[in-house]
Amino acid sequence: MTHEIAVIPGDGIGQEVTPAAVEVLEAIDAVDFDFVEGEAGDAVKAETGEALPEETRELAADADATLFGAAGETAADVILPLRQVVGSFANVRPARSYPGLDAVQPDTDIVFIRENTEGVYKGIESEISDGVTTCTRVITEDASEKIAEYGFSYAKQNGYDDVTIAHKANVMRTTDGLFLDAASAVGEDRDASYDTALMDALAMHLVMNPQDYGVVICPNLAGDMLSDLAAGLVGGLGLLPSANIGEENALFEPVHGSAPDIAGEGIANPSAMILSAAMLLDHLGYDEQGDAVRTAVESVLDSGPRTPDLGGDASTEDVTAAVIEEL
Amino acid sequence: MTHEIAVIPGDGIGQEVTPAAVEVLEAIDAVDFDFVEGEAGDAVKAETGEALPEETRELAADADATLFGAAGETAADVILPLRQVVGSFANVRPARSYPGLDAVQPDTDIVFIRENTEGVYKGIESEISDGVTTCTRVITEDASEKIAEYGFSYAKQNGYDDVTIAHKANVMRTTDGLFLDAASAVGEDRDASYDTALMDALAMHLVMNPQDYGVVICPNLAGDMLSDLAAGLVGGLGLLPSANIGEENALFEPVHGSAPDIAGEGIANPSAMILSAAMLLDHLGYDEQGDAVRTAVESVLDSGPRTPDLGGDASTEDVTAAVIEEL
Ligand SMILES: CC(C)[C@H](C(=O)O)[C@@H](O)C(=O)O
Ligand SMILES: CC(C)[C@H](C(=O)O)[C@@H](O)C(=O)O
Repeated sequence: MTHEIAVIPGDGIGQEVTPAAVEVLEAIDAVDFDFVEGEAGDAVKAETGEALPEETRELAADADATLFGAAGETAADVILPLRQVVGSFANVRPARSYPGLDAVQPDTDIVFIRENTEGVYKGIESEISDGVTTCTRVITEDASEKIAEYGFSYAKQNGYDDVTIAHKANVMRTTDGLFLDAASAVGEDRDASYDTALMDALAMHLVMNPQDYGVVICPNLAGDMLSDLAAGLVGGLGLLPSANIGEENALFEPVHGSAPDIAGEGIANPSAMILSAAMLLDHLGYDEQGDAVRTAVESVLDSGPRTPDLGGDASTEDVTAAVIEEL
Repeated sequence: MTHEIAVIPGDGIGQEVTPAAVEVLEAIDAVDFDFVEGEAGDAVKAETGEALPEETRELAADADATLFGAAGETAADVILPLRQVVGSFANVRPARSYPGLDAVQPDTDIVFIRENTEGVYKGIESEISDGVTTCTRVITEDASEKIAEYGFSYAKQNGYDDVTIAHKANVMRTTDGLFLDAASAVGEDRDASYDTALMDALAMHLVMNPQDYGVVICPNLAGDMLSDLAAGLVGGLGLLPSANIGEENALFEPVHGSAPDIAGEGIANPSAMILSAAMLLDHLGYDEQGDAVRTAVESVLDSGPRTPDLGGDASTEDVTAAVIEEL
């Protein structure tokens, strides 16, 4: 079966790591992908006035899955609408440390399941009067239940025993209270074991004892911060893939940005993007191929060429070729 | 001059570490403090129905400064109104690693200057319809300017060269946009050097390179999470003091909670509470004495008795006596 994959490289190193991931996917015999490229980000905005042109939206909406690289200044104008276009409700962010790589906490293997539709991301803001502004944070029972269902299922399917529900219900009693109650109810219904944690205390515990955590189910903004915190534990954003999962559609992107400081030099680490492509394979039902890509990336991280962010002097192309070689 | 100090031990280990800090203050000849004790927390709520009785509010309002220990389940019902009672606009949270102590990042010396009056802490929440809730986050120009003024002054007075303004203005464009603009304008007016950082990226960088940061000026909830994250870097909450600074009044509290698991055993680490008392000394103009207390605590942390959280088997009283001995 042929799948149509929308490919949106975006800005900066997105232009370098996205083709690398496509090369890897093309090297897999068992899949038949039709890649269709779209534009988004600062460059296209400079040309056309729009960071996310209508064609690109349609491309993502119609494709079976989307690979997105990165965007620069316009990141929020690109990624937030794209998440909506693909109807994504769950942002899945695994943070793992890899053997042989320097990490603040080498024993980390945590997957953040971040609610992807509401919270402060609803974009409801006003200037109420001069110098007085508000942002309306929205939490619904439906979305909270849905992300918890997804998180508990993910933990079960992927063999994680520890599930933690993050919240700040001692201060946001109504909104995070609802999130906490709805998510806990899902745990109860499934007879699953889980903990709940205030997100400030959780930030501390994640830094000190990441090995105690498996799947962390979070409201939107808490997931944004906690997953970046965890990126710091495992050696930086260059290694973190992510999936934006929707009912019928999904978008895969590295957690890193467009890295303008190194863009154009051909030395960006393609690992996060290739690992995002592995998540795309899983999502389309090619679990075996997804695993093979992850194993290949791990083996290259362990003993293959490394890009400068990991202390080596290899190029994006060297690393990509090594991953394909391992497949 | 005699100063009246309100002392509110609260629950759990608050009952153990607060008297320890008072003992230390009593051992300082240069100051003349009159200590008046008040009740707050779970225990008094169980008795009277109120976590923060009116007498205790008045005590804190009338005192020259307040020492607060910790509260249990009722923490938010005690500490949030107490911060209001003392008119606190700045929550000052230093996170330092100490020589000789195990720390995830031993080279950390960061002071979080957390806005203490608004954001999601305004408590404006509603259930808009069944299963749909909102929290109205408030950011004003006045409060943003005020916290930035405080932060830049603090950095200058305390010799920190790096000032970072934390925000999430790419998503909360109006509210954090205002925070960012107002705080940046203060930096410009003072011709001070500073950086701005998206708080998610900042979480990662703080974990990986805490030595690059000095003073971090944050909106309320971001400061809550980032300062706890930093507590994780330096070895946990047992070492972190904090000050809630108001125009005419102030409250000093450890960042840790009531630790019900070890309460009553006499083994709580009093360092965070004693360091909070040192901040109280600074605040009342006794800088020399504040420094002396900090030096004594550091020396005990380095080579004196240690409580179990730091791998030792000393009691709260042993550590307190050692600190007083060092003074
Ligand atoms: C670019 C920004 C809007 C985005 C977010 O806040 O979700 C980013 O930080 C991320 O985590 O993907
Ligand atoms: C107890 C809670 C309300 C409080 C807060 O969120 O400010 C605590 O986490 C803190 O940081 O002092």
